[in-house]
Amino acid sequence: MLERFKVPEADRVYVMPEKMHRVTKDIFLKIGLDDDGAQDSTDVLLGNDLRGNESHGVSNGLRGYVRSYAQGSLNPATEWEVVRETSTTANIDAKHALGVHVGPKAMDMAIDKAQQHGVGVVTVFNTGHLAGCSHYVYQAIEAGMIGHTMTAGGAGITIPTWGSRPFLGTNPLAYGAPARTMPPYMLDVATTQVAANKIWLLQRTGATVLPGWITDENYEPELEETPAPGPESRGKYGMLPIGGTRENGSHKGFGLGLMNEIFCNELTGLGPGPLNPHQGGHFFVAYDIEAFTDKEKFLDDMDELLKAVAEHPPGKGHDRVVYPGLLEAEEIEKRQKSGIPYHTEVIEWFEGHCAEVGVECDLR
Amino acid sequence: MLERFKVPEADRVYVMPEKMHRVTKDIFLKIGLDDDGAQDSTDVLLGNDLRGNESHGVSNGLRGYVRSYAQGSLNPATEWEVVRETSTTANIDAKHALGVHVGPKAMDMAIDKAQQHGVGVVTVFNTGHLAGCSHYVYQAIEAGMIGHTMTAGGAGITIPTWGSRPFLGTNPLAYGAPARTMPPYMLDVATTQVAANKIWLLQRTGATVLPGWITDENYEPELEETPAPGPESRGKYGMLPIGGTRENGSHKGFGLGLMNEIFCNELTGLGPGPLNPHQGGHFFVAYDIEAFTDKEKFLDDMDELLKAVAEHPPGKGHDRVVYPGLLEAEEIEKRQKSGIPYHTEVIEWFEGHCAEVGVECDLR
Repeated sequence: MLERFKVPEADRVYVMPEKMHRVTKDIFLKIGLDDDGAQDSTDVLLGNDLRGNESHGVSNGLRGYVRSYAQGSLNPATEWEVVRETSTTANIDAKHALGVHVGPKAMDMAIDKAQQHGVGVVTVFNTGHLAGCSHYVYQAIEAGMIGHTMTAGGAGITIPTWGSRPFLGTNPLAYGAPARTMPPYMLDVATTQVAANKIWLLQRTGATVLPGWITDENYEPELEETPAPGPESRGKYGMLPIGGTRENGSHKGFGLGLMNEIFCNELTGLGPGPLNPHQGGHFFVAYDIEAFTDKEKFLDDMDELLKAVAEHPPGKGHDRVVYPGLLEAEEIEKRQKSGIPYHTEVIEWFEGHCAEVGVECDLR
Repeated sequence: MLERFKVPEADRVYVMPEKMHRVTKDIFLKIGLDDDGAQDSTDVLLGNDLRGNESHGVSNGLRGYVRSYAQGSLNPATEWEVVRETSTTANIDAKHALGVHVGPKAMDMAIDKAQQHGVGVVTVFNTGHLAGCSHYVYQAIEAGMIGHTMTAGGAGITIPTWGSRPFLGTNPLAYGAPARTMPPYMLDVATTQVAANKIWLLQRTGATVLPGWITDENYEPELEETPAPGPESRGKYGMLPIGGTRENGSHKGFGLGLMNEIFCNELTGLGPGPLNPHQGGHFFVAYDIEAFTDKEKFLDDMDELLKAVAEHPPGKGHDRVVYPGLLEAEEIEKRQKSGIPYHTEVIEWFEGHCAEVGVECDLR
């Protein structure tokens, strides 16, 4: 994550991950999830916070989920149902379970199918926010497999290349693969220049938005550095696809966003997100390495590849070269020792909410 | 394709596709491919030319293939062998068949497995150039499926984000999905800002390279508009990942390029392309829509989605909004009627080569 997204030092409260895990799980239990569901949901959010991906941890997500459960648009019960299934594929009606609730079980199912048949593909519809795609891909990595996850989330945020109106969601995708001794490869990115959540983080950190990241209020690409739009501007600017402008390749970002839309919304039977507002669908794949090649050689080859990136001589003005997953692994180690830096405002929300619903809140 | 890549009007020779197909197929037959192999190989190249993707048609590719067959680094015989197989996956040793030769058969195999089990995944190693990924994805579309193809090709071209040396290939990926009446969705893009072939096309058309597309001779991002590097500069500049710079998201392009490298080279058992030079591997997937949802609804939903993009109000300075595959479909119609515009230099190569090897060359 670029420096500008990080919580400023003066505003940080460091919380040990176990403490935050306990409080978050208790909040999910209070909402009505069973122990297994509360554990899975919390693991997803805390995993993101541990990896340094605070845009998709408890800071931004949890209070929204709490609101949605209270309003009844999310279902805390484990009522999901497989509506189509083959030996290698499945489509799940989540019955409005939150993405972080049903997602771990959907990836487990894909892994199980891959173990038996080489590859497993599981789609999910009628579901809520997945909180990024990393956690699910790490599930596949832990099972010694290659993982792939996408989610279309809500649409009406991203402006098509040459377009003038919000259309797609930020439609993130993730891929991960294990290595023998090197931290695993793990890419988890929005198909927009930055994730929508990151703009909200900037409001909290006070940093600026870089040229080509978002649009102005007329939905034209903003090509100057500008202050982050405040909460009152929500819906009045659009996200730009990866690349930013056509000359710089935004048709690739828009094309990848559409691919995501097709797998998560059309293939699940939900129908086009930009036209029929719904919570969006998810897509999970696991590939068994042994079905294609010798797994021991694969792990050695991955080590060799990832080491070559980590040891690549850096260009002018840079300290090092990294691969997706490397900084995350370093961050996990650091945060497990010294705690996760949350913004004071986030801790205050936790304390207020816990008092309100009667959950013990030992975070400081 | 941006205007700058197109053959200038004064240098164009229009050739009807059937004529170019006949001559190209005869050249492949002369090399020693059997009729089926020559037909498949020619279909791939002419398909690219018909869609307006001349960077991956007969103009740039064929003379290189001819040279490699002559040198013995490509094998014209159909000797490939499946080395691992499950009901839904396969890994093929191509025994140095050209990508355009073995590729159509590999995707047929993926489609067949998907028809039986919902999804089919086929990888290929010890193989040559795939000439882009579009053709194979269209095979899946024609079978009523979602298709996905990647190829790692040769490495040592693309500079990692923050890096200083050529490392990955341009590692393209393609996705396609059918619709009912709208031209299908079909995205086929390099994970670099532009395909390497496109820089060579610019040398022929005399257009410039835009900021952030390639590096200078010190492998630092070239952030000014510059003349296209000439053939004497081959190897002296690097391609930049999608995004161009880290601030503009090049870690996403680099991360996608690595993903491609892992699926095409590590999963096939070839090992890291950047470290052990080889011709690279390919990756083909077909998804059976009916395994997940009602196919008739899917086709209607795709129509609705793609129509909404094609009818999206364009932004300032633009005439229309398009989705990947739409311009290609329009170009096919145009070129089937009026012929494919080749550069005179390309036609002269054909005439010279045909005279040399004794193939009839009726192109003008």
